[in-house]
Amino acid sequence: MSILGPGAEFDRIRDIAAVLGPRAAELGDDCAMVPINGGFLALSTDVSVEGVHFRREWLSFEEVGWRATAGALSDLAAVGADPVGVLVAVTVPADLEDADVVALMNGAGGAVSSIGGQVLGGDLSRGNQLQLAVTVVGSTGAWLGRSGAQAGDGVWVTGALGGARAALEAWTAGREPSQAARLAFARPEPRVAAGRWLVRSGAHSMLDMSDGLAGDAGHLASASQVALTLELERLPVHRGVPAAGDRAPVLVAAEGGEDYELLVALPETFGVADAARCLAETGIPLTRVGQVAAGEGVRLLHHGEPITLRGYDHFR
Amino acid sequence: MSILGPGAEFDRIRDIAAVLGPRAAELGDDCAMVPINGGFLALSTDVSVEGVHFRREWLSFEEVGWRATAGALSDLAAVGADPVGVLVAVTVPADLEDADVVALMNGAGGAVSSIGGQVLGGDLSRGNQLQLAVTVVGSTGAWLGRSGAQAGDGVWVTGALGGARAALEAWTAGREPSQAARLAFARPEPRVAAGRWLVRSGAHSMLDMSDGLAGDAGHLASASQVALTLELERLPVHRGVPAAGDRAPVLVAAEGGEDYELLVALPETFGVADAARCLAETGIPLTRVGQVAAGEGVRLLHHGEPITLRGYDHFR
Repeated sequence: MSILGPGAEFDRIRDIAAVLGPRAAELGDDCAMVPINGGFLALSTDVSVEGVHFRREWLSFEEVGWRATAGALSDLAAVGADPVGVLVAVTVPADLEDADVVALMNGAGGAVSSIGGQVLGGDLSRGNQLQLAVTVVGSTGAWLGRSGAQAGDGVWVTGALGGARAALEAWTAGREPSQAARLAFARPEPRVAAGRWLVRSGAHSMLDMSDGLAGDAGHLASASQVALTLELERLPVHRGVPAAGDRAPVLVAAEGGEDYELLVALPETFGVADAARCLAETGIPLTRVGQVAAGEGVRLLHHGEPITLRGYDHFR
Repeated sequence: MSILGPGAEFDRIRDIAAVLGPRAAELGDDCAMVPINGGFLALSTDVSVEGVHFRREWLSFEEVGWRATAGALSDLAAVGADPVGVLVAVTVPADLEDADVVALMNGAGGAVSSIGGQVLGGDLSRGNQLQLAVTVVGSTGAWLGRSGAQAGDGVWVTGALGGARAALEAWTAGREPSQAARLAFARPEPRVAAGRWLVRSGAHSMLDMSDGLAGDAGHLASASQVALTLELERLPVHRGVPAAGDRAPVLVAAEGGEDYELLVALPETFGVADAARCLAETGIPLTRVGQVAAGEGVRLLHHGEPITLRGYDHFR
């Protein structure tokens, strides 16, 4: 189970893998990859729980459905899969109206249709706490995981980072986030088109940054048995991150989880002209933020100075 | 959405299908069927919530994992699919130990490996209420749904009915169920091998009886636009149903939900010799319990007298 970095959540997954033995496929990658007809079926399941992953005061029910579904679809983006669709199981507390459940599913439908998939099925159950368990299904001809990064590769990210974290920090401090930050949290756009483009363009290794740049870079380094150096001043900071908040915007961007952007190792020959082509063809910018070397672990530099960041572990 | 019978849960699903429109595949069958390479991928997701679907006083954690997974796998049996595996998302309240989560997953692994599949992936999240969202994945060359029953068909069931209900009735009355009834509830065996055999043997229509015989017979009649007559005295009653309980054993068998046996319409030429072949080849008995005619609705007879049964609606 070397594809996982350190952390309490990942210790649990290692314990589960140990008890399951051959009764489980390899656990811990963004998607399960099931060989089928010369290609792979890509499958992943993600739970969003009220009070853990979102609060009703922050989001409309439609946005709750969109965010849960988009976050799950991000795992398909991370393996460069073509989306087929989603199954959405909703646990409905007694205070929800039927119209609220319909709004949740409308949001789920919006997220999946935005990337060309369908709601394939689902389940409704009673429960004390609103939650959505979203399973995503895709297909791909090639298996791209976390373990292929090579010394010399460039490390790139899609989009911009820190918007969702900025919204969370505003809400938890009792402020309203900027509209840009709020949308980054409420309506993340799964990078499915960019993920497919990157696989076709020779990406060596990829994952989505649900756990934040520092944590996910650690997963990539661990899975690929390489060292990553990230230069934080290069990070593309989301415009929703306040320029004069509690911390430097670049630190919000680096620590922020759940932006659902992709972290990707690309051959050293991949350059800014290729990134411009990605932008033209998928609408998604790519920014080089570091490089891969022989060794292990993640080195974070800010203007050349080493720096330590917090990770983002849902199970803390 | 004629594949669903009456009931509050099914009204919700109809409302959701209406708002999703073309953004959803047809909802309400046991599995979503996704065309792939000349066959179908069969997918379904099922949630088990503590206090709604099970109680910790009744089951060990390993049994909770087994039952949730076996119940979900029953949807693959209902479409005659070959199992690939399951994804298991667990919502873990703070009072669970890591070893409890491992035991849950050990039960899930036991259920899926018993029918030849694997745990493909999953998710762990914090939450207030223990819950498992199990997504099952299978494949099949032929689409068998609920809508193919024809006038003249025989109506058959696998296994024996009422064991899980007998256990539930004992627990809720403060008694210990018999060991046989307890096992029917704690360790249901998904009828995957029988489901495949029945598809190969020309079944016209099939579903699993999660909602109880009366309710699920209604779904089959509605989806196939036919009438079903069931002769309750023919029902195979599970040996865990007490011979001298509050109600006639055959009524416990008829009303009992979550036995995860199959209800199947077979051509009128299918007879007891064919049923004996099913038993020899899959280990699962088949019992003829009624017939299909032109018309609509379900007629329940007990020794020739019409009788009304309660359904089994989780959302009540």
